[in-house]
Amino acid sequence: MNVEPRTSEPFYSAMSVITLLTDFGTDDEYVGLMKGVILSINPLATIVDLSHRIDRHDIIQAAFAIHSGCPYFPEGTVHLIVVDPGVGTERSLLVLKLNGQFFIAPDNGVLTLLFSDQNIASLNLINNPKYFQASVSSTFHGRDIIAPVGAHIAKGLDVNELGPEIDVPSLVRIDNLRARCTDNGELRGKVISIDRFGNLITNICSDQLTDCLPAVSDENLMIKIRSNVIEGLSQTYASVRSDSPLALIGSRGYLEIAINQGHAARHLNAAKGDEVWVAL
Amino acid sequence: MNVEPRTSEPFYSAMSVITLLTDFGTDDEYVGLMKGVILSINPLATIVDLSHRIDRHDIIQAAFAIHSGCPYFPEGTVHLIVVDPGVGTERSLLVLKLNGQFFIAPDNGVLTLLFSDQNIASLNLINNPKYFQASVSSTFHGRDIIAPVGAHIAKGLDVNELGPEIDVPSLVRIDNLRARCTDNGELRGKVISIDRFGNLITNICSDQLTDCLPAVSDENLMIKIRSNVIEGLSQTYASVRSDSPLALIGSRGYLEIAINQGHAARHLNAAKGDEVWVAL
Amino acid sequence: MNVEPRTSEPFYSAMSVITLLTDFGTDDEYVGLMKGVILSINPLATIVDLSHRIDRHDIIQAAFAIHSGCPYFPEGTVHLIVVDPGVGTERSLLVLKLNGQFFIAPDNGVLTLLFSDQNIASLNLINNPKYFQASVSSTFHGRDIIAPVGAHIAKGLDVNELGPEIDVPSLVRIDNLRARCTDNGELRGKVISIDRFGNLITNICSDQLTDCLPAVSDENLMIKIRSNVIEGLSQTYASVRSDSPLALIGSRGYLEIAINQGHAARHLNAAKGDEVWVAL
Repeated sequence: MNVEPRTSEPFYSAMSVITLLTDFGTDDEYVGLMKGVILSINPLATIVDLSHRIDRHDIIQAAFAIHSGCPYFPEGTVHLIVVDPGVGTERSLLVLKLNGQFFIAPDNGVLTLLFSDQNIASLNLINNPKYFQASVSSTFHGRDIIAPVGAHIAKGLDVNELGPEIDVPSLVRIDNLRARCTDNGELRGKVISIDRFGNLITNICSDQLTDCLPAVSDENLMIKIRSNVIEGLSQTYASVRSDSPLALIGSRGYLEIAINQGHAARHLNAAKGDEVWVAL
Repeated sequence: MNVEPRTSEPFYSAMSVITLLTDFGTDDEYVGLMKGVILSINPLATIVDLSHRIDRHDIIQAAFAIHSGCPYFPEGTVHLIVVDPGVGTERSLLVLKLNGQFFIAPDNGVLTLLFSDQNIASLNLINNPKYFQASVSSTFHGRDIIAPVGAHIAKGLDVNELGPEIDVPSLVRIDNLRARCTDNGELRGKVISIDRFGNLITNICSDQLTDCLPAVSDENLMIKIRSNVIEGLSQTYASVRSDSPLALIGSRGYLEIAINQGHAARHLNAAKGDEVWVAL
Repeated sequence: MNVEPRTSEPFYSAMSVITLLTDFGTDDEYVGLMKGVILSINPLATIVDLSHRIDRHDIIQAAFAIHSGCPYFPEGTVHLIVVDPGVGTERSLLVLKLNGQFFIAPDNGVLTLLFSDQNIASLNLINNPKYFQASVSSTFHGRDIIAPVGAHIAKGLDVNELGPEIDVPSLVRIDNLRARCTDNGELRGKVISIDRFGNLITNICSDQLTDCLPAVSDENLMIKIRSNVIEGLSQTYASVRSDSPLALIGSRGYLEIAINQGHAARHLNAAKGDEVWVAL
């Protein structure tokens, strides 16, 4: 007879990491209030700011940020994604379980890149007000629904308590998020975000380079953006002269266009959404 | 005979949440140093940034932020408020206990909105250097006094150890913080802060609307700011067309003026301090 | 016979503080990913942002920030310093143990001010990939090497596991970091950083004032920066009239030049790197 209390599992759960990915910025106390709500429910949660500088309402940027960022977090992590232009309208809220992590987000396509993963364990609507704040505002579901629900999940709540299971096909998805391989053997993508250093981050991932351009090498490829042509793929920012443009596979696993010691967006007159071609 | 050590209460206390509300910004390491001091004294504290983007020396903005924010934090939370234009002068430092939470702040009126609460448990001066850093600079009491005192309170220190009890009437208060109801039945307030999205947050709370304008409904009220008139109260940002102005009760419980998908401060040419009238 | 397990030491280690000092800014998720990696290895770490707003590649500013900031953190703290213009090149990574704390940084001079401390306990290269991420990118050693190594050290890893011991003389150092005393009895320094309030922080520390100018008093010294002369040393910002310039020993222990209620950098047309003279 086993008389030992099963304390270890709930204890571990209660110490889960909760990440926040929002477009709130940090000028206001919105993020702080979400943390207060989380800690009121789950005092042992470790809260990490993934980013609060997603451009306002930029679901595409957030979709790439959560997809490329989540592998760096431990099993059990609960990711709260609050990029939600439709807050207060009829859009649903979702909780996805995938690879031992949880993702809570509005049904606006921000989870599109995760939906194609084969390892989806569960996907549920969130509509049980038992786990919401007592009073839910119409403009801040991040604080009143997503934060408390995330805190409960991190404490071990069964996601089926939150609402019914649903299927991926019924959800909002964003088309053409990924770069595509054209019939004449070019890879055609675009700039998804621009980081603090002015580096242009594209939606062209390293796997796509070899799939679409099987003969590719670091030397023989050519990248076009606006009127600029960059030849070859570098390993580091410092591998070209100062103020020279370069392309490399960035730390996210995506093709980035940069200027050594400089600001690529300004130098190349480039903006988010600009098309990027790769060919041999 | 009870031989068990009374460990549970101090343990819980030691895990209290400590929030920081400052005008330091995050460009410098000031906030990080306060956290280092706190963790040196209380390694189990959970520190939350409520906001560091209070406008420089804007005691009024900070007064509203702490008043509307504190209910979202758990019992036992210690709030450190460092908006302190008089640092190094003779102004006092205070610790207020209210609704099971603690508030440490300079005596400059930043706690005005909390002083009217009926549930004040205690109010003390902070003048016992035993709980300060060994060396107190004249320019950074946040690090040298407020942080260590807060860390000790979160560990369970009796506030009477910090200094003598005092009475609210002897403290600095800010007049006319709240909107007021005029004799001809208008509610007259002003813009207290502008958030990252350009939303104008006023000092007119939802209770005041119904108190001053008993016949008010979502349809029959009229809001004036500068030369703009907004008719009716919306439930969500998305309930008007893009780029149209709207008014709603924001997530803080105060009247906000916004532009759906736009920047109200810029569109309406409005600034902090601008007067806002509400009438039927 | 002592049968108690020696659990307290490893437990304490696992709860160590890990600080982050970078030039990443907080616009992107770079910092969040480092935290994910740390918590994946060491779920009990308490992570503190010392600053992410070091000016891009400004090793000098970072050198002063870590030197003046580290005393405010508890014993056992692990400081991760990622100001690393040479990332991906042949530059080494170091771990320094000093005064019970650990400092992990590139060998680019950012630890110069700590190298002169008499209490160096150990100094090691970091080249054992066992403690790195499985896949190391060439552009983000902060996430792939420094974060995981820091997490392991905070769990109690012996630094000799990371790489061979080395000597200070073989490392990169920055010359003339500190202000110097000239032959004609002037102290000659420069502006190292400018804080959010526009205060000019110099490399002239209070000890140097008395060493170089033995007859110094708060009244008899004179500070020159560009075409401005400031007479005397103030105790607080508020000790001169609004909009008047003043000099004081700031909270970091260094001479600062400020404008009461104003922005010194703008008012005095001063910039980082500007020379500052002190004389009697």
